[in-house]
Amino acid sequence: MLTVYGDVYSGNCFKVKLLLSHLALPHEWVHVDILKKETRTREFLAKNPNGKIPLIEIEPGVFLSESPAILVYLAEGTSFLPKDRLERARVLQWMSFEQYSHEPYIAGARFIIRYLGRPPGLEKSLQQKMAPGYQALDVMEQHMSSRAFFVADRYTIADIALYAYTHVAHEGGFDMSKYAAIASWTARVRSQAGYVGMDG
Amino acid sequence: MLTVYGDVYSGNCFKVKLLLSHLALPHEWVHVDILKKETRTREFLAKNPNGKIPLIEIEPGVFLSESPAILVYLAEGTSFLPKDRLERARVLQWMSFEQYSHEPYIAGARFIIRYLGRPPGLEKSLQQKMAPGYQALDVMEQHMSSRAFFVADRYTIADIALYAYTHVAHEGGFDMSKYAAIASWTARVRSQAGYVGMDG
Repeated sequence: MLTVYGDVYSGNCFKVKLLLSHLALPHEWVHVDILKKETRTREFLAKNPNGKIPLIEIEPGVFLSESPAILVYLAEGTSFLPKDRLERARVLQWMSFEQYSHEPYIAGARFIIRYLGRPPGLEKSLQQKMAPGYQALDVMEQHMSSRAFFVADRYTIADIALYAYTHVAHEGGFDMSKYAAIASWTARVRSQAGYVGMDG
Repeated sequence: MLTVYGDVYSGNCFKVKLLLSHLALPHEWVHVDILKKETRTREFLAKNPNGKIPLIEIEPGVFLSESPAILVYLAEGTSFLPKDRLERARVLQWMSFEQYSHEPYIAGARFIIRYLGRPPGLEKSLQQKMAPGYQALDVMEQHMSSRAFFVADRYTIADIALYAYTHVAHEGGFDMSKYAAIASWTARVRSQAGYVGMDG
């Protein structure tokens, strides 16, 4: 059986949980606590030398890390990953956008507030994440103002990847009230068959 | 004909140049200068609302951004992207590792030194990139100590993606002398048919 190593309140791990729920794929979830440095133990580093979650174990000893790679692997051959060459590339484009231009700021701000309790020493770092975070949200809002889903007119892993931290962006201090198209889209994601929230 | 918008001294753009050279694919290269804010003009934002290079124009008006997506799109159906499901996912894993755990530190440090001239106001930011940059290099060195290429025992876009900023990491102030496996691998990349450097 598939094993997932992760923390469901980490958006990167939640992406995997959400896709597995849509696919109704049996799996074992092994909770890994980042704050207790459980990703930095010798045992965990033997599984993922980069010391990060999520990580999946496909069969005993066969590991795959990095959320975009895990999502593509699990979605291959399903409706969540298009077959068309350009549409597949667009899914990767949006997942890369999320990891490079969205997650470091929106997840980063949420991490400082929610996981670390907003320590004064990180206030400047937190503030520096606001402008690029809003810029990423602006790009999403513009794209979604004329679409139901990010790619190929249907719900794909691009939506799952972007939904994970966007739907909790307020926990990172982002004011989401002006993002009407994003709000419609997050509601659309929550209405998909098999949707599950971070809380269960 | 394919059009690439980019700056060949940006590693993310060089990845595209290198793959196109290996594939001997005719294309037009349109130079875009980041420091002159040419990625933030209204004209460029109409092509890529996220305002970043590299960007390719596949046919008039059809744009694709984000280096991992561009590499996958161009490599599809060639030896540079495996067909096997797990091997494909491993290519994405390493490209995601590069964008998330490697590029922000190694390319970021190089940008401060090479593009911005190491201004005193960014010295602290530069220093903060050193430890995570070395951690990424350590992960690569460990992986390559027993392999010729990153995935599937052959030269793929995972190697191209990682080579781009690794082979100029010294320009970001990284001491590469202890990375013997990485040095062997970069030499192996340079020996591939169709290899082209940033300068030529």
